[in-house]
Amino acid sequence: MEDVDIRIEGEEITEVGRELKADGEVMNCSRMIAMPGMVNAHTHLGMSLLRGYRDDEELMDWLNSMWSVERRLSEEVIGLSSELSIIESIMSGTTAFIDMYFHPSVTMEVAKKYGIRGLLGPVFIDGLNDPKLVENDLRNMLSSRNELIKPVINIHGIYSVGKDTLERAAALMDETGLPLNMHVDETRDEVMEIRRKYGKQPIEVLMDVGLVRRNSIFVHLGWVSSWELEIITREGANVVHCPTSNMKLATGGFFPIVELMKMGVNVGIGTDGPASNNSLDVFREMKMAVLLQRNNYWSTAMKASHAISMATKNGYELIGVRGGDIAPGNKADLVLLSADSIGLLPMGPDNLVSNLVYSATGRDVVATIVNGRIIYGPHNRDEFIERAIEIGRKLEDYKSRLLPMVQLSK
Amino acid sequence: MEDVDIRIEGEEITEVGRELKADGEVMNCSRMIAMPGMVNAHTHLGMSLLRGYRDDEELMDWLNSMWSVERRLSEEVIGLSSELSIIESIMSGTTAFIDMYFHPSVTMEVAKKYGIRGLLGPVFIDGLNDPKLVENDLRNMLSSRNELIKPVINIHGIYSVGKDTLERAAALMDETGLPLNMHVDETRDEVMEIRRKYGKQPIEVLMDVGLVRRNSIFVHLGWVSSWELEIITREGANVVHCPTSNMKLATGGFFPIVELMKMGVNVGIGTDGPASNNSLDVFREMKMAVLLQRNNYWSTAMKASHAISMATKNGYELIGVRGGDIAPGNKADLVLLSADSIGLLPMGPDNLVSNLVYSATGRDVVATIVNGRIIYGPHNRDEFIERAIEIGRKLEDYKSRLLPMVQLSK
Repeated sequence: MEDVDIRIEGEEITEVGRELKADGEVMNCSRMIAMPGMVNAHTHLGMSLLRGYRDDEELMDWLNSMWSVERRLSEEVIGLSSELSIIESIMSGTTAFIDMYFHPSVTMEVAKKYGIRGLLGPVFIDGLNDPKLVENDLRNMLSSRNELIKPVINIHGIYSVGKDTLERAAALMDETGLPLNMHVDETRDEVMEIRRKYGKQPIEVLMDVGLVRRNSIFVHLGWVSSWELEIITREGANVVHCPTSNMKLATGGFFPIVELMKMGVNVGIGTDGPASNNSLDVFREMKMAVLLQRNNYWSTAMKASHAISMATKNGYELIGVRGGDIAPGNKADLVLLSADSIGLLPMGPDNLVSNLVYSATGRDVVATIVNGRIIYGPHNRDEFIERAIEIGRKLEDYKSRLLPMVQLSK
Repeated sequence: MEDVDIRIEGEEITEVGRELKADGEVMNCSRMIAMPGMVNAHTHLGMSLLRGYRDDEELMDWLNSMWSVERRLSEEVIGLSSELSIIESIMSGTTAFIDMYFHPSVTMEVAKKYGIRGLLGPVFIDGLNDPKLVENDLRNMLSSRNELIKPVINIHGIYSVGKDTLERAAALMDETGLPLNMHVDETRDEVMEIRRKYGKQPIEVLMDVGLVRRNSIFVHLGWVSSWELEIITREGANVVHCPTSNMKLATGGFFPIVELMKMGVNVGIGTDGPASNNSLDVFREMKMAVLLQRNNYWSTAMKASHAISMATKNGYELIGVRGGDIAPGNKADLVLLSADSIGLLPMGPDNLVSNLVYSATGRDVVATIVNGRIIYGPHNRDEFIERAIEIGRKLEDYKSRLLPMVQLSK
């Protein structure tokens, strides 16, 4: 639609149409594109410190490198890393995220300060932390949730926890009603290891312990089998695709977006963390998702519009928020882009969707609105940039002291 | 290297070191990254009019859609499209290009006006134009070449010309010494069609007519066979990879970068045109090249540094210019990026290469220098943007008049 006005009252969009009568604050959006804010459905915000660290390792080696550093990260550093990631996310048009990282209460405070929407929580990884303490952290977070920030039960992976932790998480889901978020079927090694240990595919094991549910979110699934997809479909669970991370970590496999959507499964999209992508720009991720499908299937069945659905409509379903298109009654989570950006011209209704997916990057975002509030725009752009640079300096200083030590100990 | 000065005299870099004595104009580059300007080794600059047009078609259908429009494009429109593409290229850090499109003399004039370096020339496509006229156009261009702009013999593809045109091109190479640039082994259909017609693989056919030489440039090669690679290696010909275009047009196949580099073949990188990518940003293309290799091979053998070599060192070899690293005696073709860009922080010597390949986009470019001249920088940024918007409007207007007509006739 061209030349439309959008009325926002409180947290919601209340009217969309031509030549609406203004009563209140008006933002001139001529030569701008308004789209629903994007949901980055899988990330690790606290990892921006590790952007560009160990970029040539495959998943398991890379994870071991990360874990050896992560053991030493203070709450302060994770807070700074998360803040840098949240600035990058908001500036590139992300209005909500699903996060999995250590010290989530620090990240939660930053998210609240900036007014972005998100799901986050402590992570079960049996080698790295005590599941009892993770559970306690999660219970503590329950009291600090608000309209925008909600806790999630994070399990790192089926290969990084024991069966008792899986059962503990299922009991927590029963008790709290919180969603589950976990990496599954990411590599062929994982599938083989789980088959050796349990004699079953990963999703089958999760099904047995009661973790495949309507509010479960499974991430990666490059090596998922057809019968696991049937279980996911039957139970109404959700899946998230992280194409860049899968490619960069050489995990191979096929994530069947078009088939999943046809089966009625809700499919989100995520950048994964700044250490495995190494960007938090969901616009770039949308392009990657289409390109990877087309390369894997030698077919153009995956369209640009599918990628936009993954980042918007499907993302809102994942986080349980009414939104995903610009319509009355939806939450006012919106992104404004300049239609005059270099690289998006010529721009018209015929190539709008293509331009958003194949040409745009987060750098074309002019303003980000969450829950009816303009959390980023021309009014605070300079503040965002200055704060990012300030954090960048602190992390550079921290890295120059921390990382060499870690490298020596390897 | 950190904290270095670069001295440029005339067209060349003459000194690189710490605390050089200034005599002349000085540009303060603190908190900036200097890298060699990038060579976009395969593009179709005149196609920005068609950005986002027919994005869901596979190569042959897509080509037919393009050709049906392209028959009607005036020199004026191609000039405007090329200018928009050249602005986008320069602003995103490209200092040289290898172009294949119609009415190249119009594009040549634009390139000269902006001071970018390039190889371009008319295109042999037997269905669409008369090879005699193409040859005449090329001869006319020979007289207008200069230090920066040189003609190239473009053949669209082995499937889109007859054997007599291939032979004509070989005779032209003998006579003029000009390089050859052509799409080869792009799809499985092409290989099958050529095998049916000639009983040989495409590169074997080209070898027979004398087109595989030291100054031949073969683009795409997703479906190249091992024995064709041996011919390319033996004859010292060059190859160019266009990962985004190959993925988007679902051509499948494998372009074996690491193996080719090991064999000593010079491998460049290209965005392909703004209608098949749909961006001319070589930074984004470098990331795509690494990701695609890692996905195809389930291995991290391809590194970020390989991608940078493809875009710089190897690109300069393709265009026959001394450059590709910042060293005395090389042409002063340089790009400056802000080290404080959002999405590149934290930035340090340990993650510089990673950040350039995996995090940066052309939007982080602050200045572009070609042949010792600052052709883009803070001084003319607004002019570039204004001109791009002006052209964007003209092309939007032109499209709204032209494209519906074309769509009706399909």
